Amino acid sequence: MERIPILQMGEFLLVTIQVDMHDRLAMTLQEDLTSRITDTQAHGVLIDISSLEIVDSFIGRILANIAKMSRILDAQTIVVGMQPAVAITLVELGLSLTGIRTALNVEKGMALLRATAGGSTNGYTQP
Amino acid sequence: MERIPILQMGEFLLVTIQVDMHDRLAMTLQEDLTSRITDTQAHGVLIDISSLEIVDSFIGRILANIAKMSRILDAQTIVVGMQPAVAITLVELGLSLTGIRTALNVEKGMALLRATAGGSTNGYTQP
Repeated sequence: MERIPILQMGEFLLVTIQVDMHDRLAMTLQEDLTSRITDTQAHGVLIDISSLEIVDSFIGRILANIAKMSRILDAQTIVVGMQPAVAITLVELGLSLTGIRTALNVEKGMALLRATAGGSTNGYTQP
Repeated sequence: MERIPILQMGEFLLVTIQVDMHDRLAMTLQEDLTSRITDTQAHGVLIDISSLEIVDSFIGRILANIAKMSRILDAQTIVVGMQPAVAITLVELGLSLTGIRTALNVEKGMALLRATAGGSTNGYTQP
Protein backbone atom coordinates (compact mmCIF):
# COMPACT_ATOMS: atom_id res chain seq x y z
CA MET A 1 0.00 0.00 0.00
CA GLU A 2 1.19 3.46 -0.88
CA ARG A 3 2.37 5.51 2.07
CA ILE A 4 4.05 8.84 2.57
CA PRO A 5 7.15 8.29 4.70
CA ILE A 6 7.53 10.13 7.99
CA LEU A 7 11.13 10.79 8.99
CA GLN A 8 12.19 11.48 12.54
CA MET A 9 14.68 14.29 13.09
CA GLY A 10 15.38 14.59 16.78
CA GLU A 11 12.15 15.80 18.36
CA PHE A 12 10.59 16.75 15.05
CA LEU A 13 8.96 14.75 12.30
CA LEU A 14 9.44 15.51 8.62
CA VAL A 15 6.95 14.64 5.92
CA THR A 16 7.76 15.30 2.27
CA ILE A 17 4.71 15.28 0.04
CA GLN A 18 5.70 14.39 -3.51
CA VAL A 19 2.77 12.45 -4.86
CA ASP A 20 -0.76 13.44 -5.70
CA MET A 21 -2.90 13.30 -2.61
CA HIS A 22 -6.08 11.32 -2.71
CA ASP A 23 -8.56 10.56 0.04
CA ARG A 24 -7.14 7.25 1.11
CA LEU A 25 -3.51 8.42 1.08
CA ALA A 26 -4.47 11.47 3.12
CA MET A 27 -6.28 9.30 5.68
CA THR A 28 -3.27 6.98 5.92
CA LEU A 29 -0.95 9.96 6.39
CA GLN A 30 -3.13 11.37 9.16
CA GLU A 31 -3.22 8.01 10.94
CA ASP A 32 0.50 7.37 10.53
CA LEU A 33 1.42 10.86 11.63
CA THR A 34 -0.73 10.91 14.75
CA SER A 35 0.65 7.48 15.75
CA ARG A 36 4.20 8.66 15.19
CA ILE A 37 3.65 11.82 17.22
CA THR A 38 2.46 9.80 20.20
CA ASP A 39 5.15 7.12 19.75
CA THR A 40 8.03 9.56 19.43
CA GLN A 41 6.62 12.37 21.59
CA ALA A 42 7.53 14.73 18.78
CA HIS A 43 7.06 18.44 19.45
CA GLY A 44 6.85 19.51 15.87
CA VAL A 45 5.88 18.40 12.39
CA LEU A 46 7.41 19.82 9.22
CA ILE A 47 5.51 19.22 6.00
CA ASP A 48 7.55 19.91 2.89
CA ILE A 49 5.45 20.70 -0.17
CA SER A 50 8.26 21.95 -2.41
CA SER A 51 7.41 19.47 -5.12
CA LEU A 52 3.71 20.30 -5.21
CA GLU A 53 2.80 22.50 -8.15
CA ILE A 54 -0.83 22.78 -7.17
CA VAL A 55 -2.35 23.18 -3.72
CA ASP A 56 -6.12 23.07 -4.00
CA SER A 57 -8.79 23.25 -1.34
CA PHE A 58 -8.53 19.49 -0.73
CA ILE A 59 -4.82 19.63 0.07
CA GLY A 60 -5.41 22.81 2.06
CA ARG A 61 -8.01 21.01 4.17
CA ILE A 62 -5.71 18.03 4.73
CA LEU A 63 -2.89 20.33 5.86
CA ALA A 64 -5.25 22.19 8.17
CA ASN A 65 -6.54 18.92 9.63
CA ILE A 66 -3.02 17.64 10.22
CA ALA A 67 -2.13 20.91 11.95
CA LYS A 68 -5.21 20.65 14.21
CA MET A 69 -4.61 16.99 15.08
CA SER A 70 -0.95 17.65 15.82
CA ARG A 71 -1.80 20.61 18.02
CA ILE A 72 -4.11 18.44 20.12
CA LEU A 73 -1.19 16.03 20.51
CA ASP A 74 1.07 18.92 21.59
CA ALA A 75 3.01 19.23 18.34
CA GLN A 76 3.33 22.33 16.17
CA THR A 77 2.94 21.97 12.42
CA ILE A 78 4.80 24.09 9.88
CA VAL A 79 4.38 23.82 6.14
CA VAL A 80 7.63 24.54 4.31
CA GLY A 81 8.93 24.93 0.77
CA MET A 82 5.87 26.32 -0.93
CA GLN A 83 6.61 27.34 -4.51
CA PRO A 84 5.98 31.02 -5.34
CA ALA A 85 3.45 30.07 -8.02
CA VAL A 86 1.51 28.03 -5.47
CA ALA A 87 1.24 31.03 -3.14
CA ILE A 88 -0.03 33.18 -6.01
CA THR A 89 -2.62 30.60 -7.05
CA LEU A 90 -3.78 30.08 -3.48
CA VAL A 91 -4.54 33.74 -3.01
CA GLU A 92 -6.17 34.00 -6.43
CA LEU A 93 -8.39 31.06 -5.52
CA GLY A 94 -9.31 32.77 -2.26
CA LEU A 95 -7.63 30.09 -0.15
CA SER A 96 -5.52 31.62 2.58
CA LEU A 97 -4.58 28.47 4.50
CA THR A 98 -5.79 29.93 7.77
CA GLY A 99 -4.39 28.21 10.82
CA ILE A 100 -1.40 26.85 8.92
CA ARG A 101 2.02 28.27 9.70
CA THR A 102 4.56 28.35 6.92
CA ALA A 103 8.31 28.81 6.52
CA LEU A 104 10.50 29.22 3.47
CA ASN A 105 12.44 25.98 3.81
CA VAL A 106 13.08 23.09 6.17
CA GLU A 107 15.90 24.85 8.01
CA LYS A 108 13.85 27.97 8.67
CA GLY A 109 10.88 25.81 9.66
CA MET A 110 13.05 23.85 12.06
CA ALA A 111 14.38 27.10 13.56
CA LEU A 112 10.81 28.36 13.98
CA LEU A 113 9.77 25.13 15.69
CA ARG A 114 12.75 25.35 18.00
CA ALA A 115 11.89 28.92 18.88
CA THR A 116 8.23 28.23 19.58
CA ALA A 117 8.10 24.62 20.77
CA GLY A 118 10.39 25.42 23.67
CA GLY A 119 12.26 22.60 25.36
CA SER A 120 15.79 21.98 24.21
CA THR A 121 17.75 24.73 22.53
CA ASN A 122 18.71 22.56 19.59
CA GLY A 123 15.87 20.40 18.36
CA TYR A 124 18.24 18.17 16.54
CA THR A 125 20.26 17.02 19.52
CA GLN A 126 19.57 13.39 20.25
CA PRO A 127 17.82 12.77 23.54
CA MET B 1 8.40 18.80 -14.80
CA GLU B 2 8.51 16.15 -12.12
CA ARG B 3 11.36 16.52 -9.68
CA ILE B 4 12.45 14.84 -6.48
CA PRO B 5 12.93 17.53 -3.84
CA ILE B 6 16.31 17.92 -2.15
CA LEU B 7 16.11 19.30 1.38
CA GLN B 8 19.01 20.99 3.09
CA MET B 9 19.65 20.04 6.72
CA GLY B 10 22.65 21.95 7.96
CA GLU B 11 25.61 20.62 6.03
CA PHE B 12 23.73 17.61 4.75
CA LEU B 13 21.21 17.10 1.99
CA LEU B 14 18.20 14.83 2.30
CA VAL B 15 16.47 13.16 -0.61
CA THR B 16 13.33 11.11 -0.07
CA ILE B 17 12.51 8.84 -2.96
CA GLN B 18 8.79 8.09 -3.05
CA VAL B 19 7.96 7.77 -6.69
CA ASP B 20 8.88 5.21 -9.31
CA MET B 21 12.23 6.10 -10.79
CA HIS B 22 12.55 6.33 -14.53
CA ASP B 23 15.49 7.36 -16.67
CA ARG B 24 14.64 11.00 -16.98
CA LEU B 25 13.74 11.50 -13.31
CA ALA B 26 16.99 9.80 -12.31
CA MET B 27 18.98 12.09 -14.62
CA THR B 28 17.22 15.15 -13.20
CA LEU B 29 17.93 13.98 -9.66
CA GLN B 30 21.62 13.47 -10.42
CA GLU B 31 21.90 16.93 -11.99
CA ASP B 32 19.94 18.64 -9.20
CA LEU B 33 21.88 16.87 -6.50
CA THR B 34 25.33 17.59 -7.89
CA SER B 35 24.38 21.27 -8.34
CA ARG B 36 23.07 21.44 -4.78
CA ILE B 37 26.20 19.83 -3.38
CA THR B 38 28.39 22.44 -5.03
CA ASP B 39 26.01 25.31 -4.17
CA THR B 40 25.62 24.37 -0.51
CA GLN B 41 29.05 22.77 0.00
CA ALA B 42 27.24 19.87 1.61
CA HIS B 43 29.41 17.18 3.19
CA GLY B 44 26.83 14.44 3.10
CA VAL B 45 23.79 13.16 1.25
CA LEU B 46 21.08 11.03 2.85
CA ILE B 47 18.80 9.12 0.51
CA ASP B 48 15.67 7.80 2.19
CA ILE B 49 14.14 4.82 0.40
CA SER B 50 11.69 3.79 3.14
CA SER B 51 8.75 4.01 0.78
CA LEU B 52 10.31 1.90 -1.95
CA GLU B 53 8.98 -1.64 -1.97
CA ILE B 54 11.22 -2.74 -4.80
CA VAL B 55 14.85 -1.87 -5.43
CA ASP B 56 15.93 -3.37 -8.73
CA SER B 57 19.23 -3.21 -10.57
CA PHE B 58 18.22 0.12 -12.17
CA ILE B 59 17.62 1.84 -8.84
CA GLY B 60 20.74 0.16 -7.47
CA ARG B 61 22.80 1.62 -10.30
CA ILE B 62 21.31 5.08 -9.79
CA LEU B 63 22.12 4.97 -6.08
CA ALA B 64 25.66 3.80 -6.83
CA ASN B 65 26.12 6.57 -9.41
CA ILE B 66 24.87 9.21 -6.99
CA ALA B 67 27.26 7.90 -4.34
CA LYS B 68 30.19 8.07 -6.79
CA MET B 69 29.33 11.57 -8.04
CA SER B 70 28.90 12.86 -4.49
CA ARG B 71 32.19 11.36 -3.42
CA ILE B 72 33.99 13.21 -6.21
CA LEU B 73 32.34 16.39 -4.90
CA ASP B 74 33.56 15.59 -1.36
CA ALA B 75 30.20 14.44 0.02
CA GLN B 76 29.43 11.06 1.58
CA THR B 77 26.24 9.28 0.57
CA ILE B 78 24.22 7.07 2.89
CA VAL B 79 21.07 5.21 1.91
CA VAL B 80 18.63 4.97 4.81
CA GLY B 81 15.30 3.37 5.65
CA MET B 82 15.48 0.24 3.52
CA GLN B 83 12.56 -2.06 4.20
CA PRO B 84 13.47 -5.57 5.43
CA ALA B 85 11.73 -7.16 2.43
CA VAL B 86 13.83 -5.04 0.08
CA ALA B 87 17.06 -6.28 1.68
CA ILE B 88 15.87 -9.88 1.31
CA THR B 89 14.94 -9.41 -2.34
CA LEU B 90 18.21 -7.63 -3.12
CA VAL B 91 20.28 -10.52 -1.83
CA GLU B 92 18.05 -13.09 -3.53
CA LEU B 93 18.50 -11.20 -6.81
CA GLY B 94 22.26 -11.21 -6.31
CA LEU B 95 22.42 -7.43 -5.95
CA SER B 96 24.57 -6.41 -3.02
CA LEU B 97 24.67 -2.65 -3.54
CA THR B 98 28.47 -2.59 -3.39
CA GLY B 99 29.91 0.82 -2.68
CA ILE B 100 26.69 2.07 -1.09
CA ARG B 101 26.65 2.69 2.64
CA THR B 102 23.40 2.19 4.49
CA ALA B 103 21.89 3.07 7.85
CA LEU B 104 18.66 2.04 9.53
CA ASN B 105 17.03 5.46 9.56
CA VAL B 106 17.70 9.14 8.95
CA GLU B 107 18.94 9.80 12.47
CA LYS B 108 21.42 6.95 12.41
CA GLY B 109 22.49 7.97 8.91
CA MET B 110 23.02 11.54 10.08
CA ALA B 111 25.07 10.31 13.06
CA LEU B 112 27.19 8.18 10.73
CA LEU B 113 27.77 11.14 8.42
CA ARG B 114 28.76 13.31 11.35
CA ALA B 115 31.18 10.68 12.57
CA THR B 116 32.81 10.17 9.19
CA ALA B 117 32.51 13.50 7.40
CA GLY B 118 34.47 15.25 10.13
CA GLY B 119 34.20 19.00 10.49
CA SER B 120 31.71 20.27 13.03
CA THR B 121 30.63 18.06 15.91
CA ASN B 122 26.95 18.60 15.22
CA GLY B 123 26.10 18.58 11.55
CA TYR B 124 22.79 20.14 12.22
CA THR B 125 24.02 23.37 13.79
CA GLN B 126 23.36 26.27 11.50
CA PRO B 127 26.47 27.91 10.11
